[in-house]
Amino acid sequence: MISLLHTPDGVRDLYGEELKEKQKLKQSINQTISLYGYESIDTPAFEFFDVFSKDIGTIPSKDLYKFFDKEGNTLVLRPDFTPSVARCAAKYFAEETLPLRFCYEGNTYINTSELQGKLKETTQIGFELINDPSIYADAESLIIVIESLLNAGLKEFQVSIGESNYFKGICEEAKIDEETEMKLRDFITTKNFYASKNFLKEQNLDNSFLEKLEAISKVYLPADELQNLLNDATNIRSRNAISRLIALYKLLKEAGYDKYITFDLSMLSKYHYYTGIIFTAYTYGVGNAIVKGGRYDQLIEKFGKKAPSVGCVFQIDEILTALRRTGLSTRSQEGKTVIVYNVENYDKAFNQASELRNEGKRTELVLFNAELGREFYEKKALEAGNTCMFI
Amino acid sequence: MISLLHTPDGVRDLYGEELKEKQKLKQSINQTISLYGYESIDTPAFEFFDVFSKDIGTIPSKDLYKFFDKEGNTLVLRPDFTPSVARCAAKYFAEETLPLRFCYEGNTYINTSELQGKLKETTQIGFELINDPSIYADAESLIIVIESLLNAGLKEFQVSIGESNYFKGICEEAKIDEETEMKLRDFITTKNFYASKNFLKEQNLDNSFLEKLEAISKVYLPADELQNLLNDATNIRSRNAISRLIALYKLLKEAGYDKYITFDLSMLSKYHYYTGIIFTAYTYGVGNAIVKGGRYDQLIEKFGKKAPSVGCVFQIDEILTALRRTGLSTRSQEGKTVIVYNVENYDKAFNQASELRNEGKRTELVLFNAELGREFYEKKALEAGNTCMFI
Repeated sequence: MISLLHTPDGVRDLYGEELKEKQKLKQSINQTISLYGYESIDTPAFEFFDVFSKDIGTIPSKDLYKFFDKEGNTLVLRPDFTPSVARCAAKYFAEETLPLRFCYEGNTYINTSELQGKLKETTQIGFELINDPSIYADAESLIIVIESLLNAGLKEFQVSIGESNYFKGICEEAKIDEETEMKLRDFITTKNFYASKNFLKEQNLDNSFLEKLEAISKVYLPADELQNLLNDATNIRSRNAISRLIALYKLLKEAGYDKYITFDLSMLSKYHYYTGIIFTAYTYGVGNAIVKGGRYDQLIEKFGKKAPSVGCVFQIDEILTALRRTGLSTRSQEGKTVIVYNVENYDKAFNQASELRNEGKRTELVLFNAELGREFYEKKALEAGNTCMFI
Repeated sequence: MISLLHTPDGVRDLYGEELKEKQKLKQSINQTISLYGYESIDTPAFEFFDVFSKDIGTIPSKDLYKFFDKEGNTLVLRPDFTPSVARCAAKYFAEETLPLRFCYEGNTYINTSELQGKLKETTQIGFELINDPSIYADAESLIIVIESLLNAGLKEFQVSIGESNYFKGICEEAKIDEETEMKLRDFITTKNFYASKNFLKEQNLDNSFLEKLEAISKVYLPADELQNLLNDATNIRSRNAISRLIALYKLLKEAGYDKYITFDLSMLSKYHYYTGIIFTAYTYGVGNAIVKGGRYDQLIEKFGKKAPSVGCVFQIDEILTALRRTGLSTRSQEGKTVIVYNVENYDKAFNQASELRNEGKRTELVLFNAELGREFYEKKALEAGNTCMFI
């Protein structure tokens, strides 16, 4: 009997003030994104396996929730919205060449067994700016991220920006083979800098490459160090990557948001579809990223449409945790009217309730139980911030 | 490559005007329910199998989407919200004796293979009034259903009300065994009245029972025939069922909604957890029910809390179809401002856009492509109901 009350590990029920806070947060972020002209899109909670396969570059297959339909097809609960939105862009907007702005809201599912108390069902709001290779698109994404977090009531956060091409350019130049690059990438992504250093020593690389690859591990690179990296870069791919970051920083500074920005070239993401900037927002007291995003210029092509794009998702559950920890609760005090009525006064109570509802006031009818007494109802209403009325 | 673009049968992508209509409809229904004091609750998209098992009485196990977590537990995508909300009521409000009002919104999943073009992922909004055995709770549920549909813009619909105890009372009185009752119930529920009649003939029943059971098949029973049924009822369970319907009708008439109500005692529902009234709303041009609900006085007890309750769900996708067919589109014309800018004017365009957004106006920045020409952008904006501005 008791087991029937449990929910599976990593998913949870929400109600009361906690859910109201979440709804308010979602509304605030959606509102900010909408002001930039993004249009909603809604994709199914599950799709064919291929949409989230290794080839697309989302999370590893072992972490997907997989099941079958009656025709025997393998279906997957979406772990990530971007491939689904990419599919839609290719399917419904195949001929569109102007920028497309999409936003979405929903849950994603990751079947982890790591018992780190991580949620397996997480709520995300995200947006994607498709058909736009420009640096202005990168800047718009980051500006929306910063404004959304500010509008939601978060005051202290940092957005780290990386650029995978800087790393890739050095690997190419140093003629590092793909397998070695992947290993190195794993060490750097997981911030395992000791392993990374030892691994690099074994590679018989030129000192200049060694230095540059080790320097990538420098987390929180201040903006003014970008120029030094640019001066030292000896291959065109790495140079372009850093030039772009410098130009991007200028746009963000003009928008007045430079104080929220740091750079981190060690950020290479576990999503392999990112091809340009990658960014992650963090805040105090929350270990996980509150926003994740980046540029993916080749993903939509895998669905049949050449469309350079940039986008990101807000991790709603993490942002809520952050808001609660900073005490900046979004708590809203909107009390209801509770009409407690005697059965013989039902008509009167019903009419009174109708009148209040017509005025837009939330009104609840509760049949009076004399055994409990008026005080009981009055106390209950007070506790919940409601107004009590007896008829 | 092309197969990557497909979604599984029975699920779909939504975007553009169609999605806006859906969002507007959801908002309208949520607003009506909220005015009655219902509080949101959010449960996971999947739960342990037992929550939706045969014992609980939701849909048959073969129609559930089942899969496993890494610990080997069987998980199920929710086919129905009511058991999840019942679980929450028992878990978080075990000691609460006053009425609890919960509402929710989300998708449900049914793994059918019937190729009737039925959706397998459907959006539902629902509400449950828990801890309230009264007829006023039944009336409130039906009034919210009618007001929600009216507020959503639907003008012509009918709510059919059944009462499973009328049928059960006759079966008891006629000493029909459980197996026979289930068969008969299936014939009646599926409106297979010919089979039902033949089956009854074989049962060697008194003529009076035969007549009554055959009469149950009379769909769309006008309210004024209820009194005749009451006069003819010879067992207490059936009498109480009809008395309750008569009293309920009176309340609905006083609320001014009797014209939306008919009775249908053949409605016995495939959800076995219903114990009192069952109701279904239909409208012209849509074959499936647009609202389904009923009283379930013993369901929450299966999760450990005695709590007589009544509730229902709105089938959002069906209501949208109905609204579109009646031409009562919820289409909203809220155009955006599209600022088409030359790259050297980015700053000016950005500032102009910020100003408009600060005024709450949705504004999109689009980099000008001279090859396309101004007319191209103007035409695009016009088609989408947007305003175009060149900077």
